[in-house]
Amino acid sequence: MYKEYSCFAEQLAKIASDEILPFFRKKIIVEEKNDTSPVTQADKNAELAMRKVIKEVYPNHGIVGEEYGIENIDAEYVWVLDPIDGTKSFITGSPLFGTLIALLHNKKPVVGIINQPFTKECWKGEKGKKSLYNGEIIETRKCKEIKDISLYSTGGRLMFKKAEDLALFEKLQKQVKVSRFSADCYGYGLLSMGCIDVVCEAEMKLYDYAALMPIVEGAGGCMTDWFGNNLSVDGDGHVLALGDKTLLPEVVKVLSK
Amino acid sequence: MYKEYSCFAEQLAKIASDEILPFFRKKIIVEEKNDTSPVTQADKNAELAMRKVIKEVYPNHGIVGEEYGIENIDAEYVWVLDPIDGTKSFITGSPLFGTLIALLHNKKPVVGIINQPFTKECWKGEKGKKSLYNGEIIETRKCKEIKDISLYSTGGRLMFKKAEDLALFEKLQKQVKVSRFSADCYGYGLLSMGCIDVVCEAEMKLYDYAALMPIVEGAGGCMTDWFGNNLSVDGDGHVLALGDKTLLPEVVKVLSK
Repeated sequence: MYKEYSCFAEQLAKIASDEILPFFRKKIIVEEKNDTSPVTQADKNAELAMRKVIKEVYPNHGIVGEEYGIENIDAEYVWVLDPIDGTKSFITGSPLFGTLIALLHNKKPVVGIINQPFTKECWKGEKGKKSLYNGEIIETRKCKEIKDISLYSTGGRLMFKKAEDLALFEKLQKQVKVSRFSADCYGYGLLSMGCIDVVCEAEMKLYDYAALMPIVEGAGGCMTDWFGNNLSVDGDGHVLALGDKTLLPEVVKVLSK
Repeated sequence: MYKEYSCFAEQLAKIASDEILPFFRKKIIVEEKNDTSPVTQADKNAELAMRKVIKEVYPNHGIVGEEYGIENIDAEYVWVLDPIDGTKSFITGSPLFGTLIALLHNKKPVVGIINQPFTKECWKGEKGKKSLYNGEIIETRKCKEIKDISLYSTGGRLMFKKAEDLALFEKLQKQVKVSRFSADCYGYGLLSMGCIDVVCEAEMKLYDYAALMPIVEGAGGCMTDWFGNNLSVDGDGHVLALGDKTLLPEVVKVLSK
């Protein structure tokens, strides 16, 4: 049903990649935004290039982008763009940054792309279809106990800025088998292909998580807030991704006060 | 002077990579070692394959390996092997793990390799020569103030297990511009090519840092302990890598009680 759009989203990812890679590991100016998060010319050029093509091909669609804001938000179809998720990874040369592209249909994500320009990896989700990694079908893995969880989180001062969030996250972290940080969107890709079990994050904006939802869900996992409720376009920023849905009640219990 | 050995080290890296990649992102058994760090068949096969070739080509050389211990340690030349640095990255599907290979001559590292099997990146250092990234000369960048530092560290419970180490590390982290975690050996590669400024770690064994020294030093940086003293083969496990040596006194001051 959304095939045309998911193919178009892959084209957008390619366009963004071509704008981003010339700046990777080069001396570039890093500006600080109002929320103290960094932004570069690569972020801006990639988002502008994607916006231009969206407007040419789908002039009636809306757009929400990290760098250039909201246009036509009440349209039936709205594209949600994060040209570089993980700008801190990007500006320090780590390959784990990625471009996130989502399409909302009546405010629900129906197409999602995580594209890694440097490692040439692409995860794709489309509502009603199985998720793909570089064209191959992927699925999440089973994980029945908290103590067996491999946990990823971007972490850091910008993500767990509220002491309560940090305390709850650390409560979970102490009970799991392995935890890794600073992975940005890459962690959701790994979860979708059955390499890890849980991603737990906070302070997430729509453009940080909309693209992840069709990928995680189409691979058999789920995405909710920290209470276990479905994520919505106006969520409170707390995001939990699980490969094995049956573990949700237990994880939510750990993340409760 | 060490050209023959640095070419041989690259061959070892290729041999290890061929043993490791078939296990990457596959269902594998993860054992826990005495120090609670994980190990897999990929670690073991890669180290055994490298040991076999070293013994064939240089039967008089010694070997120190993470998984199979010490042989002929008093030899003039000793190979130091970490088949998978970042086993936690490896077992969770992150591409930031790497193979570390060093050659000691009279107990000093003279050749070093960081090889990334998945991303096909290789950093090489050879005493008296400029360091290379995929065959291209690299150098560290200037960084004159603590507040401008991009800092990497593997971090986590196994690295900062002493409360004092964690407190000193966090003292540094609070003063820098950007910090990222869970990068294992990849951070030293990024430092050597001028993408970041400092790596600060603890609980490091010889096989964790010997290979990094010729690479960082041949790119213009320095590696010391947290007091600013030269690293030796029997160091206390505290490792500091700086792209800009002139910043060393200031960083050491922050890392003092």
